[in-house]
Amino acid sequence: MLVSIISAGMSKMGKRDNLSSRELFAEAYLECMQRVPNLDRKEIGAVYVGSQSEIYEHQIMYGNMVAETVGLVPKAAIRVEGCAAAGAIALRSAIIDVMSGLHDIVLAVGIEKMTAQSTEIVTDALMAASEPLEQINGLTFPSIYAMMAVEHMHRYGSTIEDFAKVAVKNHLNGSLNPKAHLQKQISIADVLSSKVVAWPLKLYDCSPISDGSAVAVVCKPELATKYTDSAIQVLGMAAATDTLGLYNRKDLSWPNAAAIACTEACKIAKMDLTKVKIAEVHDAFTINEILLSEAAGFAEKGKGHLLIREGETSINGKISINPSGGLKARGHPTGATGLAQVYEIFLQLRGEAGKRQVSQADYALALNEGGSDAVVVSHVFGR
Amino acid sequence: MLVSIISAGMSKMGKRDNLSSRELFAEAYLECMQRVPNLDRKEIGAVYVGSQSEIYEHQIMYGNMVAETVGLVPKAAIRVEGCAAAGAIALRSAIIDVMSGLHDIVLAVGIEKMTAQSTEIVTDALMAASEPLEQINGLTFPSIYAMMAVEHMHRYGSTIEDFAKVAVKNHLNGSLNPKAHLQKQISIADVLSSKVVAWPLKLYDCSPISDGSAVAVVCKPELATKYTDSAIQVLGMAAATDTLGLYNRKDLSWPNAAAIACTEACKIAKMDLTKVKIAEVHDAFTINEILLSEAAGFAEKGKGHLLIREGETSINGKISINPSGGLKARGHPTGATGLAQVYEIFLQLRGEAGKRQVSQADYALALNEGGSDAVVVSHVFGR
Repeated sequence: MLVSIISAGMSKMGKRDNLSSRELFAEAYLECMQRVPNLDRKEIGAVYVGSQSEIYEHQIMYGNMVAETVGLVPKAAIRVEGCAAAGAIALRSAIIDVMSGLHDIVLAVGIEKMTAQSTEIVTDALMAASEPLEQINGLTFPSIYAMMAVEHMHRYGSTIEDFAKVAVKNHLNGSLNPKAHLQKQISIADVLSSKVVAWPLKLYDCSPISDGSAVAVVCKPELATKYTDSAIQVLGMAAATDTLGLYNRKDLSWPNAAAIACTEACKIAKMDLTKVKIAEVHDAFTINEILLSEAAGFAEKGKGHLLIREGETSINGKISINPSGGLKARGHPTGATGLAQVYEIFLQLRGEAGKRQVSQADYALALNEGGSDAVVVSHVFGR
Repeated sequence: MLVSIISAGMSKMGKRDNLSSRELFAEAYLECMQRVPNLDRKEIGAVYVGSQSEIYEHQIMYGNMVAETVGLVPKAAIRVEGCAAAGAIALRSAIIDVMSGLHDIVLAVGIEKMTAQSTEIVTDALMAASEPLEQINGLTFPSIYAMMAVEHMHRYGSTIEDFAKVAVKNHLNGSLNPKAHLQKQISIADVLSSKVVAWPLKLYDCSPISDGSAVAVVCKPELATKYTDSAIQVLGMAAATDTLGLYNRKDLSWPNAAAIACTEACKIAKMDLTKVKIAEVHDAFTINEILLSEAAGFAEKGKGHLLIREGETSINGKISINPSGGLKARGHPTGATGLAQVYEIFLQLRGEAGKRQVSQADYALALNEGGSDAVVVSHVFGR
């Protein structure tokens, strides 16, 4: 094992009017600290904060912002960024810090406050993740994932009904998650009749724009029992990249960075994925849950849509994918998403996930993606 | 020692018209790689990139951008940010990565392309580093450092002539540095007669807006001799924070985060600062070189201005401060500055600094600051 996670917390996700990222962070942090009453905040040696964009709140230096909010100044506090993978990058940074011996206990934070801005501004801020030439030519995230979807349909025979099923499943899971942004169940007909955003993707194929924060406390394994009897363990971790420009990629229907990150993380964890019963993966668009289920090896290449088609990714299916509701329903405050995935896994592995609890889950995988599979961070967890 | 630095490189700093940060990075990287012909780029395990703002080039994901530019995809590549301390944070991240055992060789990169934007846009992007209430009330960087200067003048008797002497020294040093943004010598009269930006700071008390990039290769100490006989060693490293809001600070004339980072780094290095003969410190404004010389312990509290007044910080003075010309003359492409400091120290400790070479320098200190002393990273180097 690399490190232990002794606590985690998450704000309610959604359109959190009149709350800044600072306050959303505080909400997540308070829950987190309440789980570990023996932890004095002065024992936290450093803070890593993932946030995607400085546009939303006209703010950089989120490391300082977070540290100041909860009295961690003068500790080291640093922002990390990799678009929507910022949250998992913050966790990765905290893990590496503890592994290096620099600190015993480190706080990882993800934050984003998006809904106070217009959709135009959010779209513009997200487009900054793309390659310059592709930005100029108008490639937005929905259009990028639409191309991936078309490629997958063409090569492997996936259908818009398969994509819709991902949305239906994740909305069902979200309806069981009191912190989810969208808690409304929907039908396949709802998805198929929703407005086309970028064909074949419709409104319900797209994750919402959300506000939120999630946090986790990383601890040197030898010290974890001082704070909790039910820490979860990070067994493996890896990050990988692909080209920013899609024009440089060989196969739009294959998320290569995700596949590499997943393989490496499992190698470090010395385990194969058949043991994994839960995966929180980056379903910013429904097609991406299918692509990532292939990259993670839950399905063979080109057969990810068969998993959802056959109901194998539902809670207590062969592999429970996105029991939290995923980005699709739990919500997608970009910089917070990676740690929101970890929060769900933290609850699930401790048996605290309530109505959406997956039974007999000993191992879990998180896949958080920034850009269009441009940077991916994978973590493998155990009890 | 923590790690070795086996190579470094820096672009020419300045107004680099028609070049993007990608091309400036490539310039720095090529110099860096030419110093270590035995290093195959495939041996680089990860990349950390410091950049301050996404505004200048409408770009996030600089980790990917850099990795893609020089063929490092699919390696892990991550952006870190702490305003103008982003460069030293990238180095710190690379060091921690190697210390953790994750990778043996890691590339640290700093980049910023600022001059293609108007001064208004740059000012606005920099103000995002401040506390929200202070942003709204119009506190720009020059006005913040002006308040610090006034406080120091009032408490300790420093004068505008002392500040001017910092500018004159650093312009002299810059005139000896062929990669400096400003290579023109100036007089005290030039400084005092230049336009007031925020009293007592005049135009020549302020560092310029620059484009540039700097890089360093961090290596596990045991492997360094495979690549070079003249690696430099990182002996100590620390980061510390202060509150974002100045209204929360007790003493505007005391950079507390810098003092803590410096003390901790020296403690880790197990050395006292009397051995240090070279310091590259964050003179974004002339007053700050004085404040940081106190924080680093080169002068007692309240006596930093006496060092410059008595000429003790000139090249081959008691302590050579900013032999590169500092931010003031070498230039200040925000995210690159921390690694530009390291590049200078790399040259100096190897005896490759040409006309500005400090004699018998075995140890050196770098202090890189983000925001108004809100986050500071300190590194102590030896040969």
